[in-house]
Amino acid sequence: MKKVAVFRKEHFNAAHRLFNAAWDEEKNAAVFGKCSYPNYHGHNYELVVKVTGIPDPQTGFVMDMKALSDLIRTYVLEQFDHKNLNLDTPYFREMNPTAENIVVVIYELLRDRIDPTLELQVRLYETERNFVEYPVR
Amino acid sequence: MKKVAVFRKEHFNAAHRLFNAAWDEEKNAAVFGKCSYPNYHGHNYELVVKVTGIPDPQTGFVMDMKALSDLIRTYVLEQFDHKNLNLDTPYFREMNPTAENIVVVIYELLRDRIDPTLELQVRLYETERNFVEYPVR
Amino acid sequence: MKKVAVFRKEHFNAAHRLFNAAWDEEKNAAVFGKCSYPNYHGHNYELVVKVTGIPDPQTGFVMDMKALSDLIRTYVLEQFDHKNLNLDTPYFREMNPTAENIVVVIYELLRDRIDPTLELQVRLYETERNFVEYPVR
Amino acid sequence: MKKVAVFRKEHFNAAHRLFNAAWDEEKNAAVFGKCSYPNYHGHNYELVVKVTGIPDPQTGFVMDMKALSDLIRTYVLEQFDHKNLNLDTPYFREMNPTAENIVVVIYELLRDRIDPTLELQVRLYETERNFVEYPVR
Amino acid sequence: MKKVAVFRKEHFNAAHRLFNAAWDEEKNAAVFGKCSYPNYHGHNYELVVKVTGIPDPQTGFVMDMKALSDLIRTYVLEQFDHKNLNLDTPYFREMNPTAENIVVVIYELLRDRIDPTLELQVRLYETERNFVEYPVR
Amino acid sequence: MKKVAVFRKEHFNAAHRLFNAAWDEEKNAAVFGKCSYPNYHGHNYELVVKVTGIPDPQTGFVMDMKALSDLIRTYVLEQFDHKNLNLDTPYFREMNPTAENIVVVIYELLRDRIDPTLELQVRLYETERNFVEYPVR
Repeated sequence: MKKVAVFRKEHFNAAHRLFNAAWDEEKNAAVFGKCSYPNYHGHNYELVVKVTGIPDPQTGFVMDMKALSDLIRTYVLEQFDHKNLNLDTPYFREMNPTAENIVVVIYELLRDRIDPTLELQVRLYETERNFVEYPVR
Repeated sequence: MKKVAVFRKEHFNAAHRLFNAAWDEEKNAAVFGKCSYPNYHGHNYELVVKVTGIPDPQTGFVMDMKALSDLIRTYVLEQFDHKNLNLDTPYFREMNPTAENIVVVIYELLRDRIDPTLELQVRLYETERNFVEYPVR
Repeated sequence: MKKVAVFRKEHFNAAHRLFNAAWDEEKNAAVFGKCSYPNYHGHNYELVVKVTGIPDPQTGFVMDMKALSDLIRTYVLEQFDHKNLNLDTPYFREMNPTAENIVVVIYELLRDRIDPTLELQVRLYETERNFVEYPVR
Repeated sequence: MKKVAVFRKEHFNAAHRLFNAAWDEEKNAAVFGKCSYPNYHGHNYELVVKVTGIPDPQTGFVMDMKALSDLIRTYVLEQFDHKNLNLDTPYFREMNPTAENIVVVIYELLRDRIDPTLELQVRLYETERNFVEYPVR
Repeated sequence: MKKVAVFRKEHFNAAHRLFNAAWDEEKNAAVFGKCSYPNYHGHNYELVVKVTGIPDPQTGFVMDMKALSDLIRTYVLEQFDHKNLNLDTPYFREMNPTAENIVVVIYELLRDRIDPTLELQVRLYETERNFVEYPVR
Repeated sequence: MKKVAVFRKEHFNAAHRLFNAAWDEEKNAAVFGKCSYPNYHGHNYELVVKVTGIPDPQTGFVMDMKALSDLIRTYVLEQFDHKNLNLDTPYFREMNPTAENIVVVIYELLRDRIDPTLELQVRLYETERNFVEYPVR
């Protein structure tokens, strides 16, 4: 019984601003630098979703990649693509939209929609040079 | 006397929204789709600046790439990186920040700062799949 | 009146075989090597379509990238994606499906569907290391 | 005694078709969609082989990358490159050539040819957006 | 308490030569091939540093990416960028500058400068096709 | 009679140092910065060779990509790969091995070996962010 990991890459374009509402502008600027400029900036986020399980002997699939792509589209991209993460989504009203926090939110949006016998991990690229992964291992 | 083209790639992260102020929201939505969502979205813009001329026989350089990089940083990135193109720059108050319009603005910001005997062309990637170039040839 | 070039990248996955029906297997093998193996092989073709014109002052678009993407999907990808280029399309019954011949076919499929005041050029990647462009300049 | 992982990337171009011979065409079409078109399609497969062990203090190598590349060439690429995976290889006569099944076959082709004290893992990219890894961890 | 991994990519350009001083030229040539040519060759090394820990609830950061980038710059790039790894650094006087050995050196240069509650892993690309990772898992 | 451009990508790894022998070390350091460090540094050079002509109606090829690859290997890579451009090649004894000068040398090495009815252009990437092209257009 051989476990294989399958990966699906998707992307979305969004605006955000790093900001802790409990701090004044000066402290936000000191901690977050240009990432806290008030009028937002944005990224082409690249999302890689990893699902691990035993391939079905009938299909040879751990999970149908089209079904996985549809789940990501419905539960993640619909909410995040071409949106302002701080203003347009319910997740970052009080929580800072760092890549770390976004990747945990995306994991939780997908976890309940994927067969619980399959393991799930999410990697999120904010830029080619800054990226995050959750959960660890 | 051999002309060579040299290219320098830089990047900036910015928010924008496509929008024609002369139109109502409905027409903006019909023409620009999710690119006109009111709270902005954003991109990792990749910028490739091409400078063409005869290499200096003393240095073997058409232009010092560090000097070109510094020019791009000072005159383009300082204004655009981690900014909202619609709100934070003077260029897109009335002009729509499409990739086409942004690339012409960047060209004009650089043209006067580069030796006029050198030809200049700018390519701008809004995403890996949508990009523009100016001037043509 | 400033001409700008816009580029849209799409992809399709197809099988093909290089083969000249006027030659015997031995000559086909000598000229085309493993590219003429009888049971086909395949590629992830990457397609970059370049359209050049003057941006519309109302929209800032040379051409709506969504409209261009839809044209490519309808007139190219529908015919080529997940197909056998030799067997499933009418273009390569007698003409060898080299990258050179494919790119000319794609250009001609798109040329009549795009505003004739706009210039068109197509680049096709067969692999990351072998690619073609048409027309020249 | 420090374990290091070394990775070698290779590629091959192949045709395939997803298909379960126990099902009729209708069910194959319903489950596999355009991946089951009868005349095959293809991919530029990218293969990343990971070998983990303690570097030899004489050479500083976990394994000579040239030797690893030669093994991959001899035991994988010779059989798969420019071939039809369904028709030209013995592995996918009855087993569906999904990325999951291909990556397990490649692992098994290499496992016996590599020093058993070294751990082996294989990642296979079918496209830039769909890829698999085996074994897990 | 959720652990997240964050990754930062940096690069440096360096010359090196593979060579075991205990061996004669003939044996070095036999083992290391063109990698042991006497006058050095070089690479664009890409470095990906992975840091794993629990995001700070105030900032949403596992570690400030700017601080991580500055550490890499100060303790790795300053010593390695535009240098000859054999001649200009103290690490490879007696130890062969294979990717395996370089990645262990980089890990040790960073390990003491990063909060010990955070896990550290380093991946080093010598070329796009040859890369290494340390420690394992 | 349709001209098509075909492109072939190859790579080589080399060491070099920017240096004008007519200048003292101080002036070399001022002009070339860390690129003139005395013990050399290096790059993974990526080379894209573009050949333009009318596809042969028998083969559908402008030029056999395998023949082009062999020419590049024989006349360029054999001399440059895993070498020190300043010390191991005859071209950069007196001429500075800038990307501009290297690309002109590569063009001239290939020009006489390729059918004179075919146009030739060479692009050379020194890094992903610095590259050159010759001749212009």
